[in-house]
This record gives sequence, C-alpha cells and structure tokens, in this order.
Amino acid sequence: MTLLAFLDYASVFIFALTGALVASRKQLDLVGFAFVACLTAVGGGTLRDVLLDRNPIFWIAQPAYIGVACAAALIVFLTAHRFESRLKALIWLDSLALAVAVPAGTGVALALGQPVLVVVLMGTITGCMGGLLRDVVLDDVPTVLKQGELYVTAAFAGATVAAFLAPHVVHPLLPLAACAGVTWALRAGSLAFGWKLPVYKSRPPRV
Amino acid sequence: MTLLAFLDYASVFIFALTGALVASRKQLDLVGFAFVACLTAVGGGTLRDVLLDRNPIFWIAQPAYIGVACAAALIVFLTAHRFESRLKALIWLDSLALAVAVPAGTGVALALGQPVLVVVLMGTITGCMGGLLRDVVLDDVPTVLKQGELYVTAAFAGATVAAFLAPHVVHPLLPLAACAGVTWALRAGSLAFGWKLPVYKSRPPRV
Amino acid sequence: MTLLAFLDYASVFIFALTGALVASRKQLDLVGFAFVACLTAVGGGTLRDVLLDRNPIFWIAQPAYIGVACAAALIVFLTAHRFESRLKALIWLDSLALAVAVPAGTGVALALGQPVLVVVLMGTITGCMGGLLRDVVLDDVPTVLKQGELYVTAAFAGATVAAFLAPHVVHPLLPLAACAGVTWALRAGSLAFGWKLPVYKSRPPRV
Repeated sequence: MTLLAFLDYASVFIFALTGALVASRKQLDLVGFAFVACLTAVGGGTLRDVLLDRNPIFWIAQPAYIGVACAAALIVFLTAHRFESRLKALIWLDSLALAVAVPAGTGVALALGQPVLVVVLMGTITGCMGGLLRDVVLDDVPTVLKQGELYVTAAFAGATVAAFLAPHVVHPLLPLAACAGVTWALRAGSLAFGWKLPVYKSRPPRV
Repeated sequence: MTLLAFLDYASVFIFALTGALVASRKQLDLVGFAFVACLTAVGGGTLRDVLLDRNPIFWIAQPAYIGVACAAALIVFLTAHRFESRLKALIWLDSLALAVAVPAGTGVALALGQPVLVVVLMGTITGCMGGLLRDVVLDDVPTVLKQGELYVTAAFAGATVAAFLAPHVVHPLLPLAACAGVTWALRAGSLAFGWKLPVYKSRPPRV
Repeated sequence: MTLLAFLDYASVFIFALTGALVASRKQLDLVGFAFVACLTAVGGGTLRDVLLDRNPIFWIAQPAYIGVACAAALIVFLTAHRFESRLKALIWLDSLALAVAVPAGTGVALALGQPVLVVVLMGTITGCMGGLLRDVVLDDVPTVLKQGELYVTAAFAGATVAAFLAPHVVHPLLPLAACAGVTWALRAGSLAFGWKLPVYKSRPPRV
C-alpha cells in the first residue's frame, strides 16, 4: 500500500468513528450509523477529488474504503455505551482524524504537482470538510467553526508546513509526518490548554 | 424514451412535488417554490453524475428536466391548500420519489458497468441526497435521518436487490422494478406499520 | 484582464466581505473569517465550474482569487466594529455581490455556448449558492429563501435578460451590464421598497 493510500484509509476509519459517535448521540439505527460514518469519512476526500478533477473518486476506484467506514460504524454501534464520555471521545478522535486527513489531502495535491496555495487549500479542505458535512447534516454546531478553538487554523498550519518542506526534502514521508504533527499539536493544544487566536470583538453590536 | 430517462423524469417530478410542499409549509413565493423543487429534484442525480464523472450532467444535457420540476412547483403552488394534511402528502410522496430515484441511480451505475458496491451506493445516494439537501437547506430535521424509520435502509436494500439480480436476468426492467418494489415496500411499511431496525440505546449518557 | 475574470474577481471580493461580516457576528477568529469568506466567495462559482465540467476550477487555475477573499476577510476583521449596523451592511453588500455574481455565471455559460435555459440556471446558481452555503454552514436563515423577498427571482430575471440579449448584440459587455442592472434593481427594490411576489398562503394548515 502506498503512503497516500494508507493515510486515506486511516483518515476514513477515524473520521467514520467520529461520524458514528455523533449518530450514537442522535440514537440512529445501524444503517444510520453507517450512512453518517460514510458521509463524514469520505466527504472531505471526495470534495478534494471533485475539485482536482481526479477520476475516479478514491472510494469509487477502491470501494474497500466504504467497507472500512462501515466497519468503524459497526464497532461504535456495539461499543459506544462503554465510553465514559462520548463527547470527549468524539472530540479527541476528531482531532486525530484531522491530523491524518490534512496530510492525506496535502499529499495528493503535492503528487499532482499543484502550486503551493492549492496544496495548502486541498489539505485544509480534506481535513475540515468531512467533519463540517457531518455537523451540518446532523444539525450540530460545526466543530470547524467553534468560537475560540484552533481547527481550520491547525489544518492550515499543518498543510503549510508540508507545502514548504516538500520541495526541500527527498523522502515524501517527512513533510507529511511534519504536517500531521503540527496539525495535531495545534488542535490538541487548543483542546487541552485552550490555545486560541484572538477572536473578533465588537462593541456590543447594534445589529 | 429509454427506461433510465423515464425513471429520471419520474423521480424529478415526484421529488419536485415534495420540495414544493416543503416550500408551501415555509410560505415562499412561486420562484422560491421552483428553486426548492429544482434543488430537491435534481440534487441526488447531480451528485451521482458528478461522482461518476458523467458529462454533461443529466439536466444540462436535457434542460427539460428543469421544466418538469418547475411544472411540479407550479402545480403545488396552485393546489397545495386543497390537501387535508400537507405533511402526510409530503411523507408519502417522498416515499414514492425514493422508490423511483433509487432504481434511477442504480440503473445508471449498472449501465456504466460499475462494481456491485458502487452500484449500490449510487442507488442509495441518488435516492437519499435530494431529500437531504431539501431538508438541510430549509432547516428541517432530515427525513433521511429520522430516528427509528427505514429510509436509507430501504434505499440500500432496494439497490442491493437490483445489483445482485442484474447479472442474472436478461431484461433490464426486471432488476429495476424489483428495486423500486423493495424500496417502496420497506419505506411504506416503516411509515404505515412502524417497521424499524433496533436503534442505538445507551445507558443515560454522561455526555 | 478579461471582462469575465473581472466579474469573478469582483464577486469573489464582495461575497468574501459578506462572509466575513457573518463571521464577525459569530465572533470567530481571523482564520475563521478567512474560511467563511472563501467558502462564500468561491462557493457559487465552484459549483458552476463543477457542473459545467470546467477544468481546472477557476480558483485552482488562479489561486489569486483566494488571496482576494482573504484580503476581504482581513479588512472586515479590522474594520467591522466601525459599521453602525453590520446587519444592514451585510444585506446591502450581499445585494451587490449578487448583482456581480449573476453576470459572472451567465457570462461563463454564454462563452461555453450553452443553451438558454442552462445559461439562466448557471447565472442563478453562481449568484445564489455562495450565500446559501454561507448561511447553511453558519446556521443562519438562508437569505436566499427569506419569505417575501426577491432574491432568486432577481438573479433569475437578470440572467434571463442576459441570455435573451446576448444573441442580438455585438459587444459582450452589454448583456452582462443589463444583467447586473436588472438583478440589483430588483434585489434593491425588494430591500428598500418591499417589492415582492405573492407568497403562498394556505388556510391555517392542519399539518
């Protein structure tokens, strides 16, 4: 298996776990779990492939991705009641999924020889859009846009590191590993220690 | 007209009726009716075509689809006040639309010679995504994800039947008819008799 | 710069301003501003390009579009507190963005020699979908579907004017200018004077 395929599989599996956890909070049935898991798992990569006109889409070329997502849904369906806090599990799994999906998106765009800005955007989109779809469809507050947390910022920073490292190192693993590390460190730091960027503050709006 | 085109037209018309019914519940104007009707009617098939890289998209190749959807919107705009219960009409029309759209999606993927799992997924996506788009945009609870109802399950089961029958029968009508029958029977049974899969139950979550 | 590129840049810039204004109302950080600004700014045109199978997507071909959207986000981040009413600024900027995006979409479809109905739909989609994405993702009531306002109607009317003028005039600027004028006049008239189409009225529904 290539490095890029491994990253795609890992991000599909972990994002599917997060989708299924949200489905458990909405008390859906097993097919509902699988549906939300698949949507979350392949949403970001699908958008990446459509935007880059990559044909066929990664999970149409290898439907095993869908099997992986469904397996994740089944695992959560059978075990979620054992988690002490499903919300906490969700948030931390989501941070892992982000840290794997961003290098997955970045790597594809690098392999296609896209310019730096497009590489960075593809990493960010692949990382953020699956979770955004999950939250919009299930009508949760998008994790992506929670006030005062690093999420898009973490994805963007990680993708940027990879895009700038890539031309200067020989082994393709290094920029992607750095990308995953930076993304996860920023996201986890935000969750654990409250790292954040200054948010917009207005005088009390007269809106 | 080919069988596949007939299925696409029928599903566009019926889904457009459901979109316009939702528009009537939100008291939009005639153009709002047409907009929601078109979104609902061609949403699922458009996603199918984009994912399968079918060019041009079906309603760009034949803009008459849009005319059909707008006609449905006009019909509902003029007659919806006569329905005794618009919610009931909506739910049952939606079940019909599902039972037509799933074979429409399945048939296209079969005709393109896609593998079984992709065929099943395209049927499910074509059936479910139009209604999902309608509900997300108009901020209703997605019918697709209502707790304890068969919806995605019905679509998935119907598409699966078609995918497994298709290699074994000569006439292309038979698998698609079976698909429509299974889909509708499961969805209608769920609506009329409360058929459902077991939903996820947790001990009272500490979330 | 060609006329079409100018229209795309202008619509990206103005829609990005509206996205950033919504981000300011949700008190996001600077990266959140940029994310929402980009989503709003390129959403409609991206959908247009995907539907018409235009490759590469306009902002992948010229990533400078993303820079323009981010610049707009920064401007709003630094200055939004000076607006007396950000909601009012948002609504009027959105009307301008619509009046620029509709001819941008119409012009692309005309240049590709699409049939009249497709031209009109592409204008409408390009104009309406960016704002719709913004509102769905940030969970606002979609401006597109506000009851008793002209929005889709304005876009549709403007695009229709351009589609019918285009075959009859030599200079390509004229139909697009007429399109922008008609779109903005209808939208602005709706905002300032309450112009609207009759909305659907039912007897008190028994829903």
